[in-house]
Amino acid sequence: MTAQSNWQALAEAKRQAILKAIPEKWRLPTPVPPASKVRDVTGRYIQQYLSEREIEITESDAVEIASRTSTGRWSAVEVTEAFCHRAALAHQLVNCLHEMFFEAALEDARKLDAYFAEHQRPIGPLHGLPVSLKDQFHIKGVETTMGYVGWIGNFQGLKGDPRHLNHESELVRELRALGAVLYCKTSVPATLMSPETVNNIIEYTWNPKNRFLSCGGSSGGEGALLALRGSPVGFGTDIGGSVRIPSGFNYLYGLRPSSGRTPYEGAANSIDGQSTILSVIGPMAPTARSLVMIMKAVLSQQPWYHDPLVLDLPWRDDVVQQTRALIEQSKGGTPSLAFGILRWDGIARVHPPIARGLKIIESTLKRLGHKVIPWSPPSHSKALELADKAYSMDGGADLAHHFGLSGEPQPSQVIAGSNVPLSITELTALNVAKREYQKEYMDYWNSTSELTGTGRPVDGFFCPVAPYAAVVPHGYKHVGYTCFVNVLDYTSVTLPVTHADKNVDVRSATDEPADNVDWDYDAEVYDGAPVGIQLIGRRLQEEKILTLAEYLGDELGKTA
Amino acid sequence: MTAQSNWQALAEAKRQAILKAIPEKWRLPTPVPPASKVRDVTGRYIQQYLSEREIEITESDAVEIASRTSTGRWSAVEVTEAFCHRAALAHQLVNCLHEMFFEAALEDARKLDAYFAEHQRPIGPLHGLPVSLKDQFHIKGVETTMGYVGWIGNFQGLKGDPRHLNHESELVRELRALGAVLYCKTSVPATLMSPETVNNIIEYTWNPKNRFLSCGGSSGGEGALLALRGSPVGFGTDIGGSVRIPSGFNYLYGLRPSSGRTPYEGAANSIDGQSTILSVIGPMAPTARSLVMIMKAVLSQQPWYHDPLVLDLPWRDDVVQQTRALIEQSKGGTPSLAFGILRWDGIARVHPPIARGLKIIESTLKRLGHKVIPWSPPSHSKALELADKAYSMDGGADLAHHFGLSGEPQPSQVIAGSNVPLSITELTALNVAKREYQKEYMDYWNSTSELTGTGRPVDGFFCPVAPYAAVVPHGYKHVGYTCFVNVLDYTSVTLPVTHADKNVDVRSATDEPADNVDWDYDAEVYDGAPVGIQLIGRRLQEEKILTLAEYLGDELGKTA
Repeated sequence: MTAQSNWQALAEAKRQAILKAIPEKWRLPTPVPPASKVRDVTGRYIQQYLSEREIEITESDAVEIASRTSTGRWSAVEVTEAFCHRAALAHQLVNCLHEMFFEAALEDARKLDAYFAEHQRPIGPLHGLPVSLKDQFHIKGVETTMGYVGWIGNFQGLKGDPRHLNHESELVRELRALGAVLYCKTSVPATLMSPETVNNIIEYTWNPKNRFLSCGGSSGGEGALLALRGSPVGFGTDIGGSVRIPSGFNYLYGLRPSSGRTPYEGAANSIDGQSTILSVIGPMAPTARSLVMIMKAVLSQQPWYHDPLVLDLPWRDDVVQQTRALIEQSKGGTPSLAFGILRWDGIARVHPPIARGLKIIESTLKRLGHKVIPWSPPSHSKALELADKAYSMDGGADLAHHFGLSGEPQPSQVIAGSNVPLSITELTALNVAKREYQKEYMDYWNSTSELTGTGRPVDGFFCPVAPYAAVVPHGYKHVGYTCFVNVLDYTSVTLPVTHADKNVDVRSATDEPADNVDWDYDAEVYDGAPVGIQLIGRRLQEEKILTLAEYLGDELGKTA
Repeated sequence: MTAQSNWQALAEAKRQAILKAIPEKWRLPTPVPPASKVRDVTGRYIQQYLSEREIEITESDAVEIASRTSTGRWSAVEVTEAFCHRAALAHQLVNCLHEMFFEAALEDARKLDAYFAEHQRPIGPLHGLPVSLKDQFHIKGVETTMGYVGWIGNFQGLKGDPRHLNHESELVRELRALGAVLYCKTSVPATLMSPETVNNIIEYTWNPKNRFLSCGGSSGGEGALLALRGSPVGFGTDIGGSVRIPSGFNYLYGLRPSSGRTPYEGAANSIDGQSTILSVIGPMAPTARSLVMIMKAVLSQQPWYHDPLVLDLPWRDDVVQQTRALIEQSKGGTPSLAFGILRWDGIARVHPPIARGLKIIESTLKRLGHKVIPWSPPSHSKALELADKAYSMDGGADLAHHFGLSGEPQPSQVIAGSNVPLSITELTALNVAKREYQKEYMDYWNSTSELTGTGRPVDGFFCPVAPYAAVVPHGYKHVGYTCFVNVLDYTSVTLPVTHADKNVDVRSATDEPADNVDWDYDAEVYDGAPVGIQLIGRRLQEEKILTLAEYLGDELGKTA
């Protein structure tokens, strides 16, 4: 066999193995119609294959589910089975999974039920809660390909490594200790360096709400699965927007914590050891309170004693209380919270649905009596330039190596490195330039105390997740709205705000498209796509930003 | 002028300018006798030049001083003047200063006194407290040479940079806001990469307790000044032991916090942007409670809003309380605290005074009813290898550049880089290897819960600062006892334990020297040198380790 036919055969066999993991009874009776016939496969569409009871379970949020499974009101087996079924359907609709291990999951669920029956108490706060994971996390008995054909049948490309099928990432260990049930791993673009989810194994993961569009990336399978309620909560990773882009594109809350808050130990990654901009793990879910619950649960495991890069920083309830006090205070008419809004990063104009999303945010904030100021930060082009250098510091060597293992071609959506690696002197200069940029941004943030009327700088600022509400394949031209957050190491959470509407989100006839992103807007194609906006906080302000996101998300629901 | 004579002239002029900064009235009437005549210039020796009142002030610790200057009992001017005088004497005895700016200090002190007179309250918790700084911190109107001849007359080697004499480091800004008085900057080895303090400007800084020996480095001037009570508390920096070595060599408490706890923003450094092992700022003082006070004060300034690398982690009083509760519990006879002791790192045997210091620690712990276990960690050779690679990742380019500015020769004690820089692929591999080593050490630490009897792993472990009680010039052959802490990013504080005693610390006649460090021991030469031992805690456990150091330091005083 030639190298080319070899990678194709391997990929095809893996693709078939994934499909074969779906029990016969859960297979779709007929192929999914094309997007031109069925654009949106969420809600009613996927519900047609599910029982009332399965719908009830899978459309409850993680907090509701955990409150029932950890008190014996719902059995772990029933809940697990419902999510396995819905996840299997989701995969058949949009190609969002790399691994399904439903039997192992049901076995775990049975043990949890037995434990509860015996002790009349849960193993932990996530007792019986199904949790989906991006295909970077290692789980015993389950493969990790991370979208690389060259990783099929081995450990991260290392043939014969004893960790193959035999290793668990730290987060996995913690989730098990908390009582969570693991049952599937979600699709990613090979390399993880892409805002679309495409690889030579499962090929393309589509946006369930609008199958003309991408689900986003790199935690794209996670976003698509959650949009279809094939999971109540999951974990992605984010080095340039990879949690936030698929969260925004799938009408989800998604948290990009600052580095050091969540345990990456023992998970696969690209360019491992690149420490200028660290990839971070963050949760994604349809409700903000699900993110709060799972972050709190993971931190209760004291990951700082098991992952050397995690900070000794337990969940800070006092910060939650302080933030709630500010919210309450603002209800009394005292201006106690203030936010910036960034409408345009100076590089790429946003599409009309996103501009409308920002207006909804602004009117909601004003309705609630919060101060809103325009956000006029240091150059975001500078951040983009720093991020580009960090991502490609090795000249693309790591990516080329892993594609080279099988000879598979590199999908064009991957953000490829230049072929000239940095020297150490260039790298240290980059690290200094990054720190200086962080300092400049920090000083700008501090300076807003002059404008807020609260006596403090802004409590956070809003910013598009992307210039698009989802995006057409090959259409993602600007990651600047997310990657500056990684350069700054700020906390960010996406809020689902609205959906693109071809009848509303039209460009006025006199508008000249401002740039090549702007040109791409087509109201018809984008119709129905979710609009996500980020709320950004300072470094390590996860508790504050999640508390604000929960509050504002509820209020947005009342506005939209 | 040739390049060579040029650097010599520049260095000589600077050396004379430093001496000229000493007011006539404070100059020593006669040159200091050689070490063979006067070994120890601390205590009685330096006191001969001071008034009773000056001795009372300068031999009070920072906590005592601040309690008086912040309540108007002592004037800031009187205290400042006493320390300026004693610092000027210290420099004449052991060459420990790079900068003296006594007039500016007295002007600041006058303003503080005026403030207090007007408001009857202090500016901050450090109101009127003199604080010395290693010559890496920028202070308006004061030069920073960091020991490089090429930095004389410019900003960090950049000629014409407007920041020259016009820039203040973040820590300096915070200390001023807290009410501290800055009055001198202490000597360092050029490059900072040396455990002895030597440069072509001030030449060699000697150990005040034993002038045959080094004061340690790289915060060596700081250590020597504090030993002579020319300062009540100061700040050094530590990338491989540079706070702890001079603290140990000068009978001081010195804290090496984990990275991200103290603000390095705006300070000079070597190989800035090297982020594999970050240099950290730490305080040094004759009492542990002085370190507590100044750490708490600095953190009260919320440095995380002014330095992008500082973590949002205020001083944790709850951790102090929990630690005190464990101490109290142990007094009741319940074994509630447990410690490891590392006697030998598997590389270099320690000299007899250090071995005795460890025995004093052990007997003290046992007397107090604490559990002691031998510390058998993962290979420290591995840590040393990782540290070496990190320190020399640029192949020595940064160091060579700064020496090259003036053409001055590189002192032989500098830990020179190899001349082959790492590639980015080698660097990322180094970062991964470092993280794996941290994980291995962490797992070992966790495993000690099997041995302690407290139900928890050890609360900390003790380890030599160096194989020596101070060291003869050019004698420092092994930094492994400190630099592994930097690789692990652990918290460490040095405790002054005892002094080398030629009558006690003799090698038994049958002992074969184990290695080339061991061979160097000479009981006569080392007589009187301070013995420092480190207490090491996990990452970011500053509050716990300082609380333990304060407690155990007091108890050691009772034993020794």
